[in-house]
Amino acid sequence: MNERVLESGNLEIKRFFALDKNTYKPGALTAETKELLGLVASLVLRCNDCITYHLLRCVELDLSDEQLFEAFNIGLVVGGSIVIPHMRQAVARLDEIHSMKKR
Amino acid sequence: MNERVLESGNLEIKRFFALDKNTYKPGALTAETKELLGLVASLVLRCNDCITYHLLRCVELDLSDEQLFEAFNIGLVVGGSIVIPHMRQAVARLDEIHSMKKR
Amino acid sequence: MNERVLESGNLEIKRFFALDKNTYKPGALTAETKELLGLVASLVLRCNDCITYHLLRCVELDLSDEQLFEAFNIGLVVGGSIVIPHMRQAVARLDEIHSMKKR
Amino acid sequence: MNERVLESGNLEIKRFFALDKNTYKPGALTAETKELLGLVASLVLRCNDCITYHLLRCVELDLSDEQLFEAFNIGLVVGGSIVIPHMRQAVARLDEIHSMKKR
Amino acid sequence: MNERVLESGNLEIKRFFALDKNTYKPGALTAETKELLGLVASLVLRCNDCITYHLLRCVELDLSDEQLFEAFNIGLVVGGSIVIPHMRQAVARLDEIHSMKKR
Amino acid sequence: MNERVLESGNLEIKRFFALDKNTYKPGALTAETKELLGLVASLVLRCNDCITYHLLRCVELDLSDEQLFEAFNIGLVVGGSIVIPHMRQAVARLDEIHSMKKR
Repeated sequence: MNERVLESGNLEIKRFFALDKNTYKPGALTAETKELLGLVASLVLRCNDCITYHLLRCVELDLSDEQLFEAFNIGLVVGGSIVIPHMRQAVARLDEIHSMKKR
Repeated sequence: MNERVLESGNLEIKRFFALDKNTYKPGALTAETKELLGLVASLVLRCNDCITYHLLRCVELDLSDEQLFEAFNIGLVVGGSIVIPHMRQAVARLDEIHSMKKR
Repeated sequence: MNERVLESGNLEIKRFFALDKNTYKPGALTAETKELLGLVASLVLRCNDCITYHLLRCVELDLSDEQLFEAFNIGLVVGGSIVIPHMRQAVARLDEIHSMKKR
Repeated sequence: MNERVLESGNLEIKRFFALDKNTYKPGALTAETKELLGLVASLVLRCNDCITYHLLRCVELDLSDEQLFEAFNIGLVVGGSIVIPHMRQAVARLDEIHSMKKR
Repeated sequence: MNERVLESGNLEIKRFFALDKNTYKPGALTAETKELLGLVASLVLRCNDCITYHLLRCVELDLSDEQLFEAFNIGLVVGGSIVIPHMRQAVARLDEIHSMKKR
Repeated sequence: MNERVLESGNLEIKRFFALDKNTYKPGALTAETKELLGLVASLVLRCNDCITYHLLRCVELDLSDEQLFEAFNIGLVVGGSIVIPHMRQAVARLDEIHSMKKR
């Protein structure tokens, strides 16, 4: 679907997508820290698709479950109980990612 | 004012404040990473007081301006142009913090 | 899924869940009022799972449909037309709850 | 300023203001409950002016501080630490209202 | 479901629905501009049902894809990457609408 | 302050600012429509600085008060009564802009 969006020919949307991608490349902050920042921002803004995306990247970068749950907790405390359904979804996704890696 | 809130005798509010404080203590994630997570969550939720609080903690923990601007950028890209006035305020606070340290 | 979250061993998340539970116990405000407050907060923040949870509790506590629709209206007026899809979902859940009780 | 807005001659805005006013009149729910619902909705949406407005009405209706702090706590737990600056502002307003009534 | 909501007999909800409908009628602004305003407001507030509703109206009013993508881009830049899943959904709906018209 | 932000040397932030500026240039949609879209998005997201910015641009582009109040009304109906303090601020700014132009 991202490709379909880019095919539209809107130059600013294309630039936004490029900017979004560059944002998470390692720099003064590591890729791990940047993905955690993306994850917690997605949690407090309650966007399931964005949470899943950053969670996948976090696991690829070998962040541990203990680290991820501490990040989940920051999202929960900052954003409140309204974040709970999204945290539950994040934990379900995390379990799926782990069970797929074991196969 | 926090003391006045705690004086109210509401036990759950007292517990929330304790929980909030514990959340940023180093664990599987460092204090630096946790404060950055608090900072970016505050940016995308656009809370100036919360941004100032976490920014002060980030500078105390010796995070560099370059690292902070990369965190600001994640807040900006995730949260959009609506974050700009809050990022401007963050940069103004950061300059104040630096000029106070020089004295 | 809540159990899976609690199994993670993160102490702050566990405490948040306990705090969340205590928050709705009757005190100076009745359980009925507290559940209505949870319901309207969930409506304006547009969280379907949270709406369903508080709606179930409201019906258990014998709040009438007339009372619930007045609460829905406050959510609608405060939060705007963006709340409409969530109010529609709330009404559909309410009808389900009533039809299950009749059986 | 509300008068200036209404002077604009926009009929829908005029109707919205009338609707907003009717919403808090007692019906199946009491005026007290309705003002508390307006207060907590304003807290979780973090609107200081709206919080002050509903707080004034709550005190006029003789809701106690203990009841108001339980409502604040629901706003805090549902909306998270991002609500704290707005809760602090609410407590400061409440103290002002009380000190004005004593005179 | 809207009919079921209106059947509830709550007068304020009924008035809100009437007000919502009148809001998009042509006046000093054209119907086209008003639907675009509803579309972008729905995008930045991330309400899929509302996006679909205004998108259908925009296509009925013969707004071109190029115009719609410029509106999507404003939603994206103002609201940030958190809007991307909702913009993708909007593009998918737009393709569906076009393919249904061809039949 | 924007200059201070750009001086930081963060390339992505610089690109975001450029993208933001390009977004409102006339294309398939007129500059007038684009500024109205920016205005209503800012209203429903409740950002006073952003509202003032787009309002100034709207007046420069000769949009009438009647048109602006219809846009305000869309923001009010979509975003709810929580938008009222921001609409009041917008009307106050509009009056200031007009009184400055008369001198």
